Amino acid sequence: MDISEVWEALAEKDGGKIVYVILDGLGGLPNSEKGGTELQVAATPNLDRLAQESSCGTLEMVGPGITPGSGPGHLALFGYDPIRYNLGRGILSALGIDFQLQKGDVAARINFATLDQEGNVMDRRAGRIDTETNQRLCKKVKDALDHGTEEELFLETVSEHRALLVLRGAELGGKIKDTDPQQTGAPPLEPEPLDDDSRQTADMVRSFIRQTRETLSDEEQANMVLLRGFDQYHPFPSLKQRFGLKGVCIAEYPMYRGVCRLLGMEVPPPPEGIESSFDALNSLYGQDYDFYFLHVKKTDSTGEDGDFDGKVQVIQSVDRLMPGVANLARDVLVVSADHSTPSLMKSHSWHPVPVILRAPFCRFDQVASFDEISCSQGILGIRPGMHLMGLALAHAGRLKKYGA
Amino acid sequence: MDISEVWEALAEKDGGKIVYVILDGLGGLPNSEKGGTELQVAATPNLDRLAQESSCGTLEMVGPGITPGSGPGHLALFGYDPIRYNLGRGILSALGIDFQLQKGDVAARINFATLDQEGNVMDRRAGRIDTETNQRLCKKVKDALDHGTEEELFLETVSEHRALLVLRGAELGGKIKDTDPQQTGAPPLEPEPLDDDSRQTADMVRSFIRQTRETLSDEEQANMVLLRGFDQYHPFPSLKQRFGLKGVCIAEYPMYRGVCRLLGMEVPPPPEGIESSFDALNSLYGQDYDFYFLHVKKTDSTGEDGDFDGKVQVIQSVDRLMPGVANLARDVLVVSADHSTPSLMKSHSWHPVPVILRAPFCRFDQVASFDEISCSQGILGIRPGMHLMGLALAHAGRLKKYGA
Repeated sequence: MDISEVWEALAEKDGGKIVYVILDGLGGLPNSEKGGTELQVAATPNLDRLAQESSCGTLEMVGPGITPGSGPGHLALFGYDPIRYNLGRGILSALGIDFQLQKGDVAARINFATLDQEGNVMDRRAGRIDTETNQRLCKKVKDALDHGTEEELFLETVSEHRALLVLRGAELGGKIKDTDPQQTGAPPLEPEPLDDDSRQTADMVRSFIRQTRETLSDEEQANMVLLRGFDQYHPFPSLKQRFGLKGVCIAEYPMYRGVCRLLGMEVPPPPEGIESSFDALNSLYGQDYDFYFLHVKKTDSTGEDGDFDGKVQVIQSVDRLMPGVANLARDVLVVSADHSTPSLMKSHSWHPVPVILRAPFCRFDQVASFDEISCSQGILGIRPGMHLMGLALAHAGRLKKYGA
Repeated sequence: MDISEVWEALAEKDGGKIVYVILDGLGGLPNSEKGGTELQVAATPNLDRLAQESSCGTLEMVGPGITPGSGPGHLALFGYDPIRYNLGRGILSALGIDFQLQKGDVAARINFATLDQEGNVMDRRAGRIDTETNQRLCKKVKDALDHGTEEELFLETVSEHRALLVLRGAELGGKIKDTDPQQTGAPPLEPEPLDDDSRQTADMVRSFIRQTRETLSDEEQANMVLLRGFDQYHPFPSLKQRFGLKGVCIAEYPMYRGVCRLLGMEVPPPPEGIESSFDALNSLYGQDYDFYFLHVKKTDSTGEDGDFDGKVQVIQSVDRLMPGVANLARDVLVVSADHSTPSLMKSHSWHPVPVILRAPFCRFDQVASFDEISCSQGILGIRPGMHLMGLALAHAGRLKKYGA
């Protein structure tokens, strides 16, 4: 029994509102030239003031040393054990473009890619072709395709070089190896089945790849597809079912919107930019939701680009918007991240993320500044990311007493 | 395998004595008018000195965000995973009045209550009738009762409005919903069975309630009974069996004495008041026990009453008695709590409790004051409540090395 099942059993229907402000990839690493981590260097008077009124700590999202993808990072924040509730990238891609998955569907993320004359990968993103080219290629592949089985096959444009493959049928399995070699100069890999149930599905994928390669052989840039993140779709219990929370998602990017949809949250049309996201929170707060998820993407994308100063700027933009949220979210306000993306590493990392939780019945600690190092001295200690939801529910008065 | 099973496997027969001084509901919340938590505001020179000689930390008794009842909080302190070893209120009530439960018995806590003319609950405690009235009512109900089955039924006075129902028989089940609606102005609920095995037992309970309501219909205050905390009794392995500890309980209140009895501890007659409890520890210490549990109730009851100053006073009373214990308990001395009861909340809460552990081979940290915030900086970190027993056993030299 994981601890979140205890919260499920104790969850009440009513209670305070919970607001999560999640800065994607917020955690960083100290850059000696800059004098600290992105969060330490950024001027964040409002987040610092909030830290002083909050319980502080750090979250290890999936486990020690484990670098979370966006799916697991967010599932943990929402109280879903990311080891138990595992989402392949294919499922996330499908959710992100609003593809209506059915139970048992197998999905995979596709990259259009460029092979050289030896058949080795030259460009894993086919020069980042534009979305219209992607649409043309998907149609071309589908029109030429003869998959010769009962199963349905969907090939959908996501954006730029990204597309989605979905197989639907009775006898499918989702345990198949990636074909993306994750490097250039090497050939694509075979879609090996990882269990017996996936053998037939792997054959279908192999046939799909062979035919697609033939169809695309006259293309200059996108003459191949690389597949990864195969997974079979099994719907998760919703936040409402589990914790009694009617949630709403304020996020610009498809993947995060998709995860929220998977958990039964309402997902209104995307805001445009950080300020618009905070405006949306402001106008939704009076409505009948229990849980508000506000997602800021740019802390992650600047981190991925290795843009230390850019990430500092994004953090400061968020800080300037915090007084409004702090005035609004008087019940439970959380500021944290789904994982670290240090600009020094230009990638997601395993380093814990700082968290602050402010609520009427929270204990204050002596943390006076919102950053990775200060928060590590906080009263919440270092803990698994999924613990956050239990703490948020408790502080919102949404958990009954356990036992007599 | 939970970690306490490893301690079981490693436990030695001999070793130092372990003393737990448990201040019920000790953990608090900062009260801005008073300048801190109850523990921060209380003058505790002796506990502070002890903290300086101890390893300090905080304990999350059941899990993040989970508010422990008294049973789970104490089971955790004694090294029993409170999720796995779950005790209903009925069982605790029975243990508390020394009712000799047999394996398979189903017990429930009863409140005498007052219904209005529409049949809605007017007073969930029947004006807190006195214990003699309770005894008269129990006899009246039993004399009139015709339960028409093979099973035995026991109805026992606890105190004031509180009583105990125990059913004994071959075909019983303990998964039955509370009939206490936990509010006034609503009718009592039906004792719904929560699994098939409890269907027949629920019918017996329904018949008992119907007859009792008839019998009590001429009473002015206590004209109804409300039942909650149904549970079936399965004895737990004792502290002696698990960890080789011969334990003794110094506690005034029935429920805590009951938990100790359940775990095979000896339970001498109750002391009267805090000073008498510490005197009892003093005179028992020379005897042949390995584990001493001293329980102080009033930190919890003042917290439940919202009496910040009263709770401070109780803490100070305990502090004055600490030098004696500190001189006595030279092997392992623990001061901690079973859960928080912040006087701001007037109820149990999920907030972690401070803990200090002093032993000849303990590491000191820089914690100089015994309170929730200072101890959160301690060397033990924040950890599950049940970890305490493993640390106590180790510091008492009672755990063999693991592996070669």
